[in-house]
Parts: sequence; structure tokens; C-alpha cells
Amino acid sequence: MASSFGVLFRVSTFGESHGAAVGVIVDGCPAKLPIDVDEIQRELDRRRPGQSKIVSQRKESDTVEVLSGVLDGVTLGTPIAMMVRNSDARSSDYEEMRTKYRPSHADFAYDQKYGVRAWSGGGRASARETVGRVAAGAVAKALLRERWGVEVVGWVSKVQALTADIDPETVTMADVESNIARCPDAAVAEQMVALIERTRKDGDSLGGTVSCVARGVPCGWGEPVFDKLEADLAKAVMSLPACKGFEVGSGFAGTDMTGREHNDAYRSDDGETAYTTTNYSGGIQGGISNGMPITMRAAFKPTSTIMHEQDTVTTELENTTIKGRGRHDPCVLPRAVPMVEAMVALVLADHGLRQDALSPRDG
Amino acid sequence: MASSFGVLFRVSTFGESHGAAVGVIVDGCPAKLPIDVDEIQRELDRRRPGQSKIVSQRKESDTVEVLSGVLDGVTLGTPIAMMVRNSDARSSDYEEMRTKYRPSHADFAYDQKYGVRAWSGGGRASARETVGRVAAGAVAKALLRERWGVEVVGWVSKVQALTADIDPETVTMADVESNIARCPDAAVAEQMVALIERTRKDGDSLGGTVSCVARGVPCGWGEPVFDKLEADLAKAVMSLPACKGFEVGSGFAGTDMTGREHNDAYRSDDGETAYTTTNYSGGIQGGISNGMPITMRAAFKPTSTIMHEQDTVTTELENTTIKGRGRHDPCVLPRAVPMVEAMVALVLADHGLRQDALSPRDG
Amino acid sequence: MASSFGVLFRVSTFGESHGAAVGVIVDGCPAKLPIDVDEIQRELDRRRPGQSKIVSQRKESDTVEVLSGVLDGVTLGTPIAMMVRNSDARSSDYEEMRTKYRPSHADFAYDQKYGVRAWSGGGRASARETVGRVAAGAVAKALLRERWGVEVVGWVSKVQALTADIDPETVTMADVESNIARCPDAAVAEQMVALIERTRKDGDSLGGTVSCVARGVPCGWGEPVFDKLEADLAKAVMSLPACKGFEVGSGFAGTDMTGREHNDAYRSDDGETAYTTTNYSGGIQGGISNGMPITMRAAFKPTSTIMHEQDTVTTELENTTIKGRGRHDPCVLPRAVPMVEAMVALVLADHGLRQDALSPRDG
Amino acid sequence: MASSFGVLFRVSTFGESHGAAVGVIVDGCPAKLPIDVDEIQRELDRRRPGQSKIVSQRKESDTVEVLSGVLDGVTLGTPIAMMVRNSDARSSDYEEMRTKYRPSHADFAYDQKYGVRAWSGGGRASARETVGRVAAGAVAKALLRERWGVEVVGWVSKVQALTADIDPETVTMADVESNIARCPDAAVAEQMVALIERTRKDGDSLGGTVSCVARGVPCGWGEPVFDKLEADLAKAVMSLPACKGFEVGSGFAGTDMTGREHNDAYRSDDGETAYTTTNYSGGIQGGISNGMPITMRAAFKPTSTIMHEQDTVTTELENTTIKGRGRHDPCVLPRAVPMVEAMVALVLADHGLRQDALSPRDG
Repeated sequence: MASSFGVLFRVSTFGESHGAAVGVIVDGCPAKLPIDVDEIQRELDRRRPGQSKIVSQRKESDTVEVLSGVLDGVTLGTPIAMMVRNSDARSSDYEEMRTKYRPSHADFAYDQKYGVRAWSGGGRASARETVGRVAAGAVAKALLRERWGVEVVGWVSKVQALTADIDPETVTMADVESNIARCPDAAVAEQMVALIERTRKDGDSLGGTVSCVARGVPCGWGEPVFDKLEADLAKAVMSLPACKGFEVGSGFAGTDMTGREHNDAYRSDDGETAYTTTNYSGGIQGGISNGMPITMRAAFKPTSTIMHEQDTVTTELENTTIKGRGRHDPCVLPRAVPMVEAMVALVLADHGLRQDALSPRDG
Repeated sequence: MASSFGVLFRVSTFGESHGAAVGVIVDGCPAKLPIDVDEIQRELDRRRPGQSKIVSQRKESDTVEVLSGVLDGVTLGTPIAMMVRNSDARSSDYEEMRTKYRPSHADFAYDQKYGVRAWSGGGRASARETVGRVAAGAVAKALLRERWGVEVVGWVSKVQALTADIDPETVTMADVESNIARCPDAAVAEQMVALIERTRKDGDSLGGTVSCVARGVPCGWGEPVFDKLEADLAKAVMSLPACKGFEVGSGFAGTDMTGREHNDAYRSDDGETAYTTTNYSGGIQGGISNGMPITMRAAFKPTSTIMHEQDTVTTELENTTIKGRGRHDPCVLPRAVPMVEAMVALVLADHGLRQDALSPRDG
Repeated sequence: MASSFGVLFRVSTFGESHGAAVGVIVDGCPAKLPIDVDEIQRELDRRRPGQSKIVSQRKESDTVEVLSGVLDGVTLGTPIAMMVRNSDARSSDYEEMRTKYRPSHADFAYDQKYGVRAWSGGGRASARETVGRVAAGAVAKALLRERWGVEVVGWVSKVQALTADIDPETVTMADVESNIARCPDAAVAEQMVALIERTRKDGDSLGGTVSCVARGVPCGWGEPVFDKLEADLAKAVMSLPACKGFEVGSGFAGTDMTGREHNDAYRSDDGETAYTTTNYSGGIQGGISNGMPITMRAAFKPTSTIMHEQDTVTTELENTTIKGRGRHDPCVLPRAVPMVEAMVALVLADHGLRQDALSPRDG
Repeated sequence: MASSFGVLFRVSTFGESHGAAVGVIVDGCPAKLPIDVDEIQRELDRRRPGQSKIVSQRKESDTVEVLSGVLDGVTLGTPIAMMVRNSDARSSDYEEMRTKYRPSHADFAYDQKYGVRAWSGGGRASARETVGRVAAGAVAKALLRERWGVEVVGWVSKVQALTADIDPETVTMADVESNIARCPDAAVAEQMVALIERTRKDGDSLGGTVSCVARGVPCGWGEPVFDKLEADLAKAVMSLPACKGFEVGSGFAGTDMTGREHNDAYRSDDGETAYTTTNYSGGIQGGISNGMPITMRAAFKPTSTIMHEQDTVTTELENTTIKGRGRHDPCVLPRAVPMVEAMVALVLADHGLRQDALSPRDG
């Protein structure tokens, strides 16, 4: 279960950072969905290291191979297995990790859990594990678009103190991709890029937030108790490496408001559909989508690997120090955008199918 | 799946607010665990309406009946079914809800999903659904305490702008229960009580945050990818009614820090165990517990039911207004504390068993 | 998981034989399904002891109470909890079971697994546990009938050496219910009744087979690999107490045939639908329904409780003897019919929903 | 879910017969288990075509590549992905299958379900899908052996009318592998080989049974209700291609016995362990292992592909005929042995972990 996610649209990932390959099986995708491998590759390219000057300079082409489940450009309804071979693994950069635990990394916890660890490259705890998620997310996005007209867009809304206020109703993927910070506000994006570059030179790292919106989600998706839409989204996004917080709609800021301010009034212009005049609910009420844009935000901590001497212990639990080496992201935010979108898409594709099971469209 | 949660320690709840009963089945609890029904009842008493002047004045004794799975004060290893009969249902208070959707409630979304709705009392979307969770959580707490020495404590850390800064390492259940606000800072608690009373008189409502800590969690609990401990905690807590945000460790505030500031340095005093000198990680690294206290915080929006006229639509989608009636919580926070604790306990009990499966204690 | 079954149409049972109650939660049943409580009760009446002279003479009215999920005669889409209070528990009949293991019962295995045991009445291992299954099966049957026009009919096809050859295409529930043996061949049924009565007088017991057919199952239900329709049916039926074997279509007898004899030729009379001229496949090919009747057969061993002295051991593992007491079924077959039907209905309802998710009916 | 199996020891397979590759992810295998890739390969060699004169003459080396989860010869506790590239795909042999449905194959049912089909090589319905199962089963066998001392041995016990009576307490893997029929009775094996060869020359096919025993299973594995050990074994084995029946212990034959004959008397020789003097229960009582050998038998129908003209319909549902082509097994039984063993091993490994979770070994 550890490496699987979803009820009907179900993904299982595999792979260590410096192992032979990373990948994913997508099980439960309906048949006859057109699949464009280039589209999957484009999502992986948004995720891969080396894509710009502000991310890790590791050189991985991350070329996807579809091993099953697709024939003549359409899904067969059977498991879609996708794989990316690992290539640029410099284990030498990691030699010290064999015997010392990196602060705020998973090394220590893994050793405690398993008693053995793929120390090189961070193994399974590496952000490289998200390759499978992003590939699967590309399939989910295609399903969401083709079957229900749903669109998922994420962007960087904060890097340290720099914040951008973006309208979730109108922001487009093109806006997001217009700069390497993936922040649709060009002015703020410029500042973010400068800050990230400066921080890298300092050998330090930064955190921030990714915002995300799902538009076009029909009313009625989500389940009323444990599998509330916001709960499944929270789990999905908080399962990403370095994610420390998640909120929907008004989130933590909503706690400063009163009910009179916070309630979303319903209106109908045509007597056929209803909408709310505000969207503090973030498109979800009682765990179920209400037809408004689903809005959310995720917090990512500053990258753990920094180029400064830090206190730590050895695997023998002797006190020592360690200093980061290798090619790392000074700020994961720009690469986190496609990861968040992928996880949101996986949740929505699963809930879309679940709702179709209960309430077939001609019912 | 909608109403079930957990892999090995698995709960399934049932019940509408104004139906015959609400309850839960706990499946997968190990045999021979001592169960004190009074202990379960005490947790339900912390959750029930009418417990103090600042919560809903509905009168429900919420007396639990254990239907199965326990014999002579110990668990049998078989499903533990627990039930609470509903008693104080004044459907008359809800008559208007039959034909009008309450703003920021689940009424509209439920109708869109199911095409039918237990309008009286909010049905399944009522906070009454959490009776089963809290009863199950009491069993989980007993298991955590008896098998692994784990303790879970929650408290109200914020009501609107009033915040309390509590030390998660030392706060006790007795501190929390020392006042009706469930805020261990007596001075702030007093202000919270006054604010809630004032707001109720205004017919308005408030939100806030519940903080929670789990102490004594052994190293190695949690799974590395989708079922990361923080991800499962996020899902669990965000599945509670009115919850809009969740964070672990430094959470959203951590995004203002740099890696140098945020990294938790390891130290060992005895060469046998290690700890971190700070705990921005919140006791979890790479999805796996590292032996430090697991700290988290959840945001609850202001209660949706308010005693003011608000815009809404009828079930026929005609524009109209609605005004809250009945006996409601002006602020869910004090009653949310046992709910959050219960959900955290359910996640931890499940992961404790999962880890025991992988790494038996004599292994 | 132990006491839950199904992916989308999911049931969880609870209850010990001599505990407070037995029951079930049905989660995932679509909303707006008409539910007739009398229909559920009728199925329970087919299962209950004391219904005829050839079954156990325990007196249990087995009156079902619906606790949630149904309002004004239709399902709400939320969990349907149903409960039956236990009443006629004569623990005195079981006193010896406290310290001695009954041969071929679950007493010894339970003690080994749990280290504690509800010895009175067999606890969770009692056939009484099937009350919840049969109640849930009644809901599943209603869904199958209303949504897809599917009908499930089971009957006793063998008691010891007495066998009945019944046409699965035409047999009706009325045929089955026309006699207390639940064997639609009246002449064989008479012999069965006589044999069972004679065997009871001898203090001995009998086994046999239940056959079952599902008619009207649309093409395309079932999954191609692990969740093949025949695999899920096998698990479902073999999870019934005393069931030792399961087969679909030609089953074990098919191993005597060659491929030329066994293959089911396709034909079409109208160019719009196809059928097979024989049905050795039992309506399932590659795990997926092909539109033909789904035929299956289950073997039930002779009842373990007999009124003869038998070798066994005490709970202290000392050799001793034991002799059955109390009111038991000399042959479970007549009461097993509604249990088999229920399990088949649960599997089909689940797969029907799963297929609707993949291929909505207007698709 | 369709292509995943297991709760804690969980496998997910992928791959079409004539696609790029077939394979599997094993998730939930404990860390530090020694893994010998040669051992996995040996199991695949027992399954692969071309291994002897009585099986399909397709030439597939079926060389396994381990992509993740294993480092320096031990498991990491992370998902173990294994892959076999497809090589000898002669699509020309299958051209006719594009437009005609092969009798008693899955072609028709797949088209009804998915509306699209990997017609070449049978796609996902090919026995080639079992490559992943057998590879995963090899890991499960290693875990069973290393952690609990459990051994699984299967053999061919029947081909058409030829039957072998083998002692499940003593039969060894070496006995099974001593001839190409995989029947430990050398005389019967010789007859089987002759019969299979003769049948192949006739262009016809044969069915039969595989028997299997699991020895050394500790008391207490299995769950009492839906996940009974026999139920999970039934599902596992009946999910294999061509399997039509499954029984444990006395199975269908037990229905001819009375309770007096069928009950397994307990005895203890040392006051520390108990055993039964007969084993009609097949090592499982009430769904839970009792320490005796777990015995079972599975029925496989005669292979559907035969070299004779048969009635069928086209994909346009016009009546026509079809005649098998290509290199097929005249009898799947010898190759089914490692498949059955693999499925049994997967079930047992999963239940072993589940029991360790409930009852840690030092508990």
C-alpha cells in the first residue's frame, strides 16, 4: 500500500534514485482514452533536473518508455506501465552519506525503519521518485480533460517572503510556463529567480508555496466522510517530498474570519445552475465538489541539502558534522508545480470514476 | 470506502444525525487489549453537545453500547461494533432546510451527488457523524498506550485572533481539560470563552486552530511514498467536518525560513539514541517518524450556521434567503479537540501495526 | 480487512454468536434505491434456525433493524447499518467448549491466533456471523434487479450421495422455496429430507453442494487478472463457514473433457448479440462475463457438531473426549442457499458498479 | 485493483503478451531479505514456453531484470519491480484473431468490456501475464522460507483421466521436477507425457488438476470472516488463466462423508503441541491455519486453442468458423504448477505479515 494510491484509478510507483529505473503502473484507466506519449514527456520535462538555471544541474533526460496498456495511441483498459532509466548517477557525491545522516533528510528515519538503505542518491526518498507520479498524472490529466472537461493548473505563489496574488479562475498553463520560476506574475517571478540564484550562491536554500486550481469539476465528486475530496487532496499533496502543509479554500486564513464573512452565498441566474458569490469553501462542501473552482495551496520547506557544515551523527551515532555536496535544488518550488498538479489530477480522476460508478451519466 | 479508514486498524462509521443511531465498527484491533467502556464514554463526553455553555445546547447523552468484539473487558481480535442511539432530534428546527440550501453547508453538494438527502439535522454531513470516530479513537488510544507507550494530546491553539503558544513536549490532557475552551493557557482560554459567548449573542460564529502532539512514537513508523505519516495524518484530520487546513512541524511558517535555519541537527548524548536539537520536521522525515514528538495543527473554519439572514437558493434554484435556527456551536474548536485526537490516534495505531508486521519486535 | 468485503459495494460485518448483536454496514450502495425491509427480513428468515424440522431448533426471530442509510424507503447513498439482536443463547450448552476443543471446529485455531476466545456459541466462527452477509445480500439483490435486471438463484444440488440435476436457465426461487430441503427436484428433495432426519436421529451429520446461477449479467463485468469474476466469486463463497470447494461452469468435471468437447462455440442469430451453444465456461471467459448464465457450485462439509464421543484435546493440550450438545444443524445445506446467493449478489453488485465506473452506460 | 493482489505483501502486474514487456511490482516485502536473482529466474524457467516437448514451442528466454528494491543482494523494503522483455511475438499467427473471436478465449468478453483489444497474442488475457506472478511468487517463497520456515510444493495430480495419488506430507520439489509432466509418480507421469503428445498430434487439448501443499505454516494465519485462508487461496488460484475449480482438504469429495467420518480428531503427544489424526480440514479451520499441512487442488480446463475448425462469430457478429494456429500448449498443467505455487506463496506471505502485525513474535 505504501507505494500505491487511489481506489479505481490506481497508481503504484517504484524505483530508487540511483537504481536501474524509476516508474509507475497506472491501473484502472478506462479503455479507448487517446494517449500522446509526447504529452507525458512534456510533463516529465517540467519536472526534470537541469531544465533551468535555478534548479538542480543533474543531467537526466528522463525519457519515458511506455511498456504496456497502450496500443495504437489509445489505452487498452489494462495497466499502463511507464519507466524512466536512471542515467546521471554520481555516487561519489554521496559517499559521505553512507556513514553520516544528513539533517532533515530521510536517511536516519529509513535506517531506523528498514535497517538497510540505498544511501546513494537518497534512494527511494529522493524527489526522483516523483517521476512515476508525474507520468501517471499526465494520464490522469488526459482522462480528466477528455471525459469531464476538467483542467488542473498549479503555480508558485510564494518563495520565502515573495508572494504573488494570482486569480485562480483565469490563470493558464501558458502563464505558468512563461518563466522559469513558474510564477504567473512576471514581476514577482523575476524577483524569485534573483532570490533563488543569490541563495544558491550562498549555499543556502528556500521554501515556499505552490497554489493549484482544478476548474470544471462537476458537482458531486468526493465522498462524505473519510474520503472527502479535501482529505484525499491533502493526503495526495502532502505525500510529496518536502511538503509540510496543505489548505483548501480559505484555509488557515479563514480562521480569522467570522461565519458571516466566511459563508459563501448561493445564487442562481438561470434557475438551472447555482454558484456561490464567494469561494471561501474552495469548491468543496462537506467533502463534495459544488461546481466552483477547487482551490488549494501547499507549503514546501526549504531544501534540506545545503552547502554549509551542519551538526549531525554518524550511523554509529557519534556526533560529527556534514556539508552538502553534489548538484541540488536551492528551491524545489518550480519543479514542485508539475508534481502538485499530478497528485491533484490523480485524486480527481479517481473520484470522477467513483462518481460515475454511483451515478452513471445517463442515469 | 467512503466511510472506512485504515489498512490494518480499520474503522467504518455509519449513521445520520436524525436517524436511529450513529456508530462504528473497529476491525483489526489485536486481541487481549484491555478495554474500559468508561474510557470510551469519557471521550464521547468530551465531544458531545451540551457539555458547556460555549457549545451547542442540544441534549444528547451519547451513551455508547459495545455490541461485539469485547468480552470480559478485553478485545477478542474480532470487529468491535459500538453504537449511540440518537435522541434529541428536533426536526422542526430543520424544516426550512428541506427546501433551501444553507450557505457553506453540504446540503447543495449532497443533493447534487445523491439526488436525495436526509435534510433533517444535516444527515450524514452533521458533526454527529464523528461520534463513531471518537469511540474508535478511544480504542486506538488504548492500543497506542498499552502496546507502544504512545500518547496523543490536542488543544485549542487559536480562536479567531486569540492565540496560545503551548509547549508540545510538556502539555498534558489535564491542562487541556482544565477549562471549557480546551486551551491550556488559562488566560487566553478565558478570553476565548468570552469571545465565543459574545459571538454567540451576535448570532455569528468563529473558527480557529487545534494543535496536536503525539509523544512516544517509536522511530520507523510511516511509509516512504504515498502513505507518508504526514500524508495519512493530513487526510485523517482534514476529513473532519469544517477542517480547511493541516500542517506538520514548521508547516506554512517554515516557508519563511532558509535551509540553514530550518534543518534539524542530529545529536546523540549516549551513542545509543539520537535526537534533533530543533523539531521543525515535526517528528517526521521522509514520511517516517524519527522519534521526536509529532506536532501538527489543523484549521477549522467558522461554523456555517449563523443566526442572520443570508442569500441562498431553494432546491428549485430560485434565489431566496435563509436564517439559521436551532441549537448550534458558535465555535467548533472545543469539541474538535477530541475529534482531532481520535483521527491522529487512528492513523498511528494503523501505522504501528503496519510497522510491527514488517519488523516484528524481536526481529 | 478481515471482516470487510468488496471494492465499491463494500460490506463490513460484526458480532459474536452469543454477544449483544450481529450485523453489517453496507457502504457504497447508490442512492435512491428502493429498499423494502420486509424483503431483507424474508432473506433472513430463509437463513434463520428453527425454520423447519431439518435445521437447528434454536429459536431466533432474527428481526432486522435498519439503523442508517435508508429514509422513506429509499437509500441515501450513505452507509446502511443493519443489526439483529441475539436472543436465544443457551451458554450452558457450551460450557464444555470452554476447556475442550471441538474437532473440526475453529476453537483451537482461534485460540492459537488470538489467545482469547468467545467460547460460548462459537463466537465469531458461528454460522450466526452470516446474518450480516444475508442482510447485505438482500440489498445487493435489490440493486442488481433494479439497476441491471440481474437475478441470483441458488439451490441444494447434493446431500451426501443424493443429487439433483436442475436446469440453471429456468430454475426459479419459487421452485427452490417449494420444499424445506431447498432442492427444486421434489422427488430428490423428499429423499434428502428423509436422509437428514434419519442422520439427525443417529446424531451424525451430512454435507453436500449448493448450486447457484446468476442470470441477466451484462457482458463485460469482471476484471482480467486478479479480480476475475470467478476468482472473486470463489473467494466470496469459500469464505462461508464449512465451504471446502468451489467451481464455475464445467469445474472439476471439465478436466475429463478435451478442448474439442469443452470449447463453447459462438453463434449469433441476429447479428446484434452473440451467445454460446454450450456453456462450459459458466458465463465467464478470461475473468469477464460473456452474457451467458453464470453457473457455479460450492461444496459444504458435513457439520462438525455431532452427538458422538470424539477424541480431542483440552485447552491445556491434554488428550480427552468430547460429545456434541445443543441444537445444531445435522446438515447446513438448506440454510446455506441464502448465504451462497448473498455472497454471489455481493460480488456481482460490486463488479456491476466497477464496470459502470469504467464504461458509463451512455458511453 | 484489477491487477493488484494482497494487503501487506502486495503485487501489481502489467503487460500484454505482444507488448514491450511484462512484469510486476512487489510492494510490502520486508527489508533485509536475501534475494537471489537466479532463484527468481529458475521459477520463471519452470513457467516459460519451450521448456519441454509437451508445452508450447514459443521461444521466450524470459530473462528477468530487477529494476528496483534490491541492493547488494538484499531487499530494501521498497517496491521490487521486475520486468521481462517480450521477444518471440509472431503476430502473423494471430492475424485471424483480429476479426474472429476464438471459442472459450477471452477475445469476445474483452471486446464487450473495453471496446478495444490487443488482439495479437491474446494481450493481457494471455498466460504470459503470469510471468509477473511467478517472479513475485519467487520473492514470496524466499520470505516464507527465511522468516517462517514455510515451504510450498505443487504437482500435476491429474491429466484427463490419468490420476496420481501423492502424499502431501512428503512430496518434494525434486520429485516434482524429476519429469517434464511435473507429476511425482513416475509411471503416471510417463502416461501423461504420452497422452499429451498424442493429443497434440490430434490437434486437440487436455485439462487436469494441480495439487499443492504448504508445509510449516504456523498456527493462527488467516482471518475469520471474508479473508479466510481458504477463501484467499481460492481467489488467488482461481485468478489463474483456465482455472475452473478449487478445493481445500477433503473438498468436493468430503460431501460424500458424514461428520463422524470427516471430523479431524485432535491429539497431543507432548502436551505442548496438538495435531489432528486425519487432515480432511486441509490444515485450515474457521479460516485459520491449525498447524497441519495446507492441502488444496485446482482444476484447469482443456486449453482453448485447438487445431480444428470450430464455429464462432466475427467481430461484426457474423457466423463463421476458426481454426487454431501458432504454437500453443496442448495441456497447461505442467506449466501451471509454478503458477499455482506462486499464487499460494503470495497469499501465505501476505497472511504471515498480517499475523505478525497482530501478534508480534516476542508478544
